[in-house]
Amino acid sequence: MDADTSDDRSTRGNMPEMSNLTSYLQEHRSRFLNEFVDLLRIPSISALPEHAADVQRAAEWVASRLTTAGIERVQILPTGGHPVVYGEWLHAPDKPTILIYGHFDVQPVDPVDQWTSPPFEPAIRGDRIYARGASDMKGNLLMPIIAAEALLRTRGSLPVNLKFFLEGQEEIGSPQIPSFLREQRDRFAGDLVISADGGQYSDDQPALSISCRGLAGVQIDVRGAQTDLHSGMYGGVVPNAIHALVEILGSMRSADGTIRIEGFYDDVIPLSEADRAQIAAVPFDEAQYKRDAGVDTLVGEPGYTPMERVGGRPSLDVNGIWGGFEGAGIKTVLPHEAHAKITCRLVPNQDPDRVIELIAAHVAAHTPAGVTATTIPLPGKARPYLMPADHPGNAAARAVLEELYGKTPYVIRGGATIPVMDLFLTTLGAHTVTFGFGLPDERYHAPDEFFRLASFERGQTAYCMLLDRLGAR
Amino acid sequence: MDADTSDDRSTRGNMPEMSNLTSYLQEHRSRFLNEFVDLLRIPSISALPEHAADVQRAAEWVASRLTTAGIERVQILPTGGHPVVYGEWLHAPDKPTILIYGHFDVQPVDPVDQWTSPPFEPAIRGDRIYARGASDMKGNLLMPIIAAEALLRTRGSLPVNLKFFLEGQEEIGSPQIPSFLREQRDRFAGDLVISADGGQYSDDQPALSISCRGLAGVQIDVRGAQTDLHSGMYGGVVPNAIHALVEILGSMRSADGTIRIEGFYDDVIPLSEADRAQIAAVPFDEAQYKRDAGVDTLVGEPGYTPMERVGGRPSLDVNGIWGGFEGAGIKTVLPHEAHAKITCRLVPNQDPDRVIELIAAHVAAHTPAGVTATTIPLPGKARPYLMPADHPGNAAARAVLEELYGKTPYVIRGGATIPVMDLFLTTLGAHTVTFGFGLPDERYHAPDEFFRLASFERGQTAYCMLLDRLGAR
Repeated sequence: MDADTSDDRSTRGNMPEMSNLTSYLQEHRSRFLNEFVDLLRIPSISALPEHAADVQRAAEWVASRLTTAGIERVQILPTGGHPVVYGEWLHAPDKPTILIYGHFDVQPVDPVDQWTSPPFEPAIRGDRIYARGASDMKGNLLMPIIAAEALLRTRGSLPVNLKFFLEGQEEIGSPQIPSFLREQRDRFAGDLVISADGGQYSDDQPALSISCRGLAGVQIDVRGAQTDLHSGMYGGVVPNAIHALVEILGSMRSADGTIRIEGFYDDVIPLSEADRAQIAAVPFDEAQYKRDAGVDTLVGEPGYTPMERVGGRPSLDVNGIWGGFEGAGIKTVLPHEAHAKITCRLVPNQDPDRVIELIAAHVAAHTPAGVTATTIPLPGKARPYLMPADHPGNAAARAVLEELYGKTPYVIRGGATIPVMDLFLTTLGAHTVTFGFGLPDERYHAPDEFFRLASFERGQTAYCMLLDRLGAR
Repeated sequence: MDADTSDDRSTRGNMPEMSNLTSYLQEHRSRFLNEFVDLLRIPSISALPEHAADVQRAAEWVASRLTTAGIERVQILPTGGHPVVYGEWLHAPDKPTILIYGHFDVQPVDPVDQWTSPPFEPAIRGDRIYARGASDMKGNLLMPIIAAEALLRTRGSLPVNLKFFLEGQEEIGSPQIPSFLREQRDRFAGDLVISADGGQYSDDQPALSISCRGLAGVQIDVRGAQTDLHSGMYGGVVPNAIHALVEILGSMRSADGTIRIEGFYDDVIPLSEADRAQIAAVPFDEAQYKRDAGVDTLVGEPGYTPMERVGGRPSLDVNGIWGGFEGAGIKTVLPHEAHAKITCRLVPNQDPDRVIELIAAHVAAHTPAGVTATTIPLPGKARPYLMPADHPGNAAARAVLEELYGKTPYVIRGGATIPVMDLFLTTLGAHTVTFGFGLPDERYHAPDEFFRLASFERGQTAYCMLLDRLGAR
């Protein structure tokens, strides 16, 4: 899609003032693209300490860009880690206050030799701009800022009150964000969060994400004898820690994929017929999914389709296991320690702390004689998140997407975990609409990450429309 | 026990010529001890390539010592690895031919800082000589050589035909010995093997080992998806390789310790009431055994005592397991590979190749959908070994031990694996009597290994008596 098409589509809309906006966006198109390139040049890799100054530089760039857009009281706020950029425009009494969420940090670039062009030297090839952070999420980040600028310049005001929460540590799990947000909850208070960190189903099919799964993880440490022993002298008599761990782990799952931890499903809200219909309405190419995963068989809890399992049911995966001898050849050792890491993806209304308790109780109840097993919670706990499908924020986003694409958005239940959504809900009392324009093939987190220039422009228009819709409530 | 006691005890015997022998041993006592010290000074660590020349030097020392004793045709034979020392004395027509087995290589010495005196500077403290190889088995190795010398010098002949098979690679699993022995089977042909690589139950209680367990090992490699996957996108739908491995391993054993591999017990010769009585006759201090192992509970196959399990029943141990993420913290990966190493200790008449086939068939039958599992045999296969309790070699050894200790030896079924015994049986058609004088507390394979000087002298006398007994048949 090029800019003309975007223009064409936006003028189909009902907003009388959109044509001025479209003209503004069109007029400043080159500048916006140059700004996007400038931001992509900053190697703001949050995971690498040697790039901490670059993350700070990206924060300064974003703060400056907010000011240019007409956003007020812009500040770079310390968090104890990478900073948060704040800005606001609060001159719309009686209108809702919208908090825009995004992040300006990026993933590392290894393996760097697999990039066609250097990851921080943005290269435009066809309709695509290649750089680390292009799809995730510097393009998406700029859209609401550009939209605010366009609205302010063409009308002198915004249709809503606007706040920005732009962070620099998303790619490392936002370690300081929960406590930072709790401390600054008054500053960030609002009626609705819009997360620009998202995507659409395809180039011509919009999607609306309404949920993500929570996360609870533990490490299980099994200990038997004081040291590894000679299997000839003790084998068959002294408890083998690996055997015990296998027994414990084996007790957690049925062969058919049902999780057998006592009470695990108790708090799960069953999928309604409407939920299942919503999930089934999203095309699922099982053959392609298998090809992507490199498997020829799918497994899982009986009675559910694969996408119901991913989006609507909890899962339990052993992520790692180790114990005893891992070298080449043979070593007839009777191992005295064995370890496993487990994570569960959770769905509403499972609570990660409760799930960890249930796992610990299960481990205690299934530890065979002669060994001890300890269950240690892992960091990274997150509650599942589900937004009511009829929430006004969802309704507004759906209307904008329908208008832009001419199609009803698919309603997506995501399988992954985005802790910030639950954090906003529990800290600010506000739900989060995900509104971004990445596409699944854009190799985020991988070499040759790219973003579509058409998406960049479509998203600017979309944010103008969305803010107007939210202000029209 | 000092030399006087040994002298005292040996003269209690019925052999009319023992007093001359005893005098000879007594007279040359200092020289023999000096020779022991000389041999202990050679750091013949077979596992370390930088000590290969030392292993060769030990071979030369032993060859020279055999010649000094009056053994003929002494040769250092190449094996492709560390050498074998051969020697013979074959001038006793109508008498049996006895093959003496031993090894002159030793274990590594790490952690070397835990030695009270340097491992290759033999130190005599009290009745003990401390050095690597003192107990395992340079002292034991010298006994039959010294006995042959004493017999030849005092009588001019030996009561049996004698051959020596002294190797330099026992501590690394004797990799070249099977093919070497098969190629040289005529040279080593004999009626009975005496292995000097063994020990007694305690200072005042002899023991006769009649069996050792065999060994069969496999590695199981489970593979699912092409790469590790995101557990949020694929968890609960795409097969997890660790889950599959846990399921496979879990199917191999009952919670009570019974091995559930189809056919695994088919070839096992059940323990008879006599076998069980023999095992029960050996005192077993369960509390001490648990303390040694550092456990407070023993486990294992129902219906058997711990020592029946160790000596008379097969076992299966997972020696190592690994897959997925083993680092600190959390990584929500869905692992695509998982691996385990398994070894089984085997009892008569289990065949290691057959057991490996059974394991592979079990793995194939219990591999869950969506993954592949391969079962790869590990090196180190060995058949179980059992010597008839009434074998004339055993009878002779029992008689000598009874005479020396004034007690009937315990009959021991060993849990470990000594592949050379089955090798001699299948290659030469000869059984092996284990006749050595190490004691369990002598820290072989550990820092501060030592040997009792009393044992060194007792063993010299014992070998004179044993060869006489075997020649009297």
